[in-house]
Amino acid sequence: MRNIKITLQYEGTRYQGWQRQDSTENTLQGKLEALLGKMSGTRIEVQGAGRTDAGVHALAQTANFKLPDNVNHKPEEILAYMNRYLPDDIAVIAAEEVPERFHSRLNAKGKTYHYRILNSAVPHVFLRRYAWIVENGLDVEAMRKAAAFLCGTHDFSAFTSHRKSKNPNKKSKVRTIYTIDIDKNQDEILFRFIGNGFLYHMIRIMVGTLTEVGTGKIKPEAVAAILASGQRENAGVLVPAKGLTLVEVHYSEEGKTD
Amino acid sequence: MRNIKITLQYEGTRYQGWQRQDSTENTLQGKLEALLGKMSGTRIEVQGAGRTDAGVHALAQTANFKLPDNVNHKPEEILAYMNRYLPDDIAVIAAEEVPERFHSRLNAKGKTYHYRILNSAVPHVFLRRYAWIVENGLDVEAMRKAAAFLCGTHDFSAFTSHRKSKNPNKKSKVRTIYTIDIDKNQDEILFRFIGNGFLYHMIRIMVGTLTEVGTGKIKPEAVAAILASGQRENAGVLVPAKGLTLVEVHYSEEGKTD
Repeated sequence: MRNIKITLQYEGTRYQGWQRQDSTENTLQGKLEALLGKMSGTRIEVQGAGRTDAGVHALAQTANFKLPDNVNHKPEEILAYMNRYLPDDIAVIAAEEVPERFHSRLNAKGKTYHYRILNSAVPHVFLRRYAWIVENGLDVEAMRKAAAFLCGTHDFSAFTSHRKSKNPNKKSKVRTIYTIDIDKNQDEILFRFIGNGFLYHMIRIMVGTLTEVGTGKIKPEAVAAILASGQRENAGVLVPAKGLTLVEVHYSEEGKTD
Repeated sequence: MRNIKITLQYEGTRYQGWQRQDSTENTLQGKLEALLGKMSGTRIEVQGAGRTDAGVHALAQTANFKLPDNVNHKPEEILAYMNRYLPDDIAVIAAEEVPERFHSRLNAKGKTYHYRILNSAVPHVFLRRYAWIVENGLDVEAMRKAAAFLCGTHDFSAFTSHRKSKNPNKKSKVRTIYTIDIDKNQDEILFRFIGNGFLYHMIRIMVGTLTEVGTGKIKPEAVAAILASGQRENAGVLVPAKGLTLVEVHYSEEGKTD
């Protein structure tokens, strides 16, 4: 078996998220597996580093899959084949052979996500699929103060939605956030999150909470208490998926994949 | 009559250009006139500063129209009304009342257009509607040298397509280009043109010619001879509309519209 790592770009607008569910759903994983099945003549399972939700975009998602030895396409042939048949809102921007033990999700050391807000009373045609519009003025300094309380290693139970799962409470809700940068450029506010991993809906609930700090509804210091409470209902709203982009998946050494 | 100036943003992908033709065509001018007709209960003619072609985008096109005195919507009400009913690939980002003599096209002193090339062998999902993909490497320094020959006041007959018109030769083909900047940022090449006006297809033929300089097919110095020849067939190809964006319309005083 050869192990192939691909780097993917996609506009999430039309898709019901990364994860394959039943065959009637339009998911990224399902779409890629169907195409690679056609290419190889066998069933292929594609592992993605991040299980992006419906509507979430990716600038550089990574994924890997195993190919039987009788399938002898070179990585550049796989890239060309996939780009020929994928719709134009999905692209493979890199493909390489990696050691057999490499797993795109289990080996990931961290991820960078961006969330974009358009802080404006008028719409923006070119950002309509990629930004959440907030009309009320936002205090960026207050949001930065609040964000500092979220950095570090914490139990983020207050900042996640319950997944429908058999054992919802068994998994650790502890994650480490290395940095949250908030930049304002004209009427665009860009949140950059780097962390070792993020829970279901975690970034979108953090942005919802920070936005309520930005409008003055929540004091920056209150975010520490919300985090400590572990209660979802104390945090802010879940903001729309379209503002969120998976920008990069980090592995242990820059440029290495194992 | 009140004279209203609006600033417009649009993604040109779905439209057959700015200029109203017959009523079966999906043009920006036609769409805006129909909507303002509904708002005012009377026939409204909208004058745009630039007659952008099919597929060309605008970050800030300007236009103006006259409203009868019995139509008493304030500019902010016009903006809100239009944004409520326009499709999400067109937005009005500003509206103001201007002196009766103001004409968006006749008073324009110049325009800024951008043309974007993605110089890459792999597609880019988020630029697929806004950039022309060129796989071959482009020599940016050579393109800058060639662009210098196009700056200044010249007869640009070699860099325009014939419009179907009754008197095609009567109009002057002399225009002034103030600057052509070419910036490369990773695999994106951005051409920024500022001029007092541009002929039909002029920017797209200039970019086509500069791209042929970039690949080495045309020497930079040859562009002076192409310009002097006045013959369209000596210049380069017409590049795709989707890379072109009308970025700004300049009037005599910054911030003033008359």
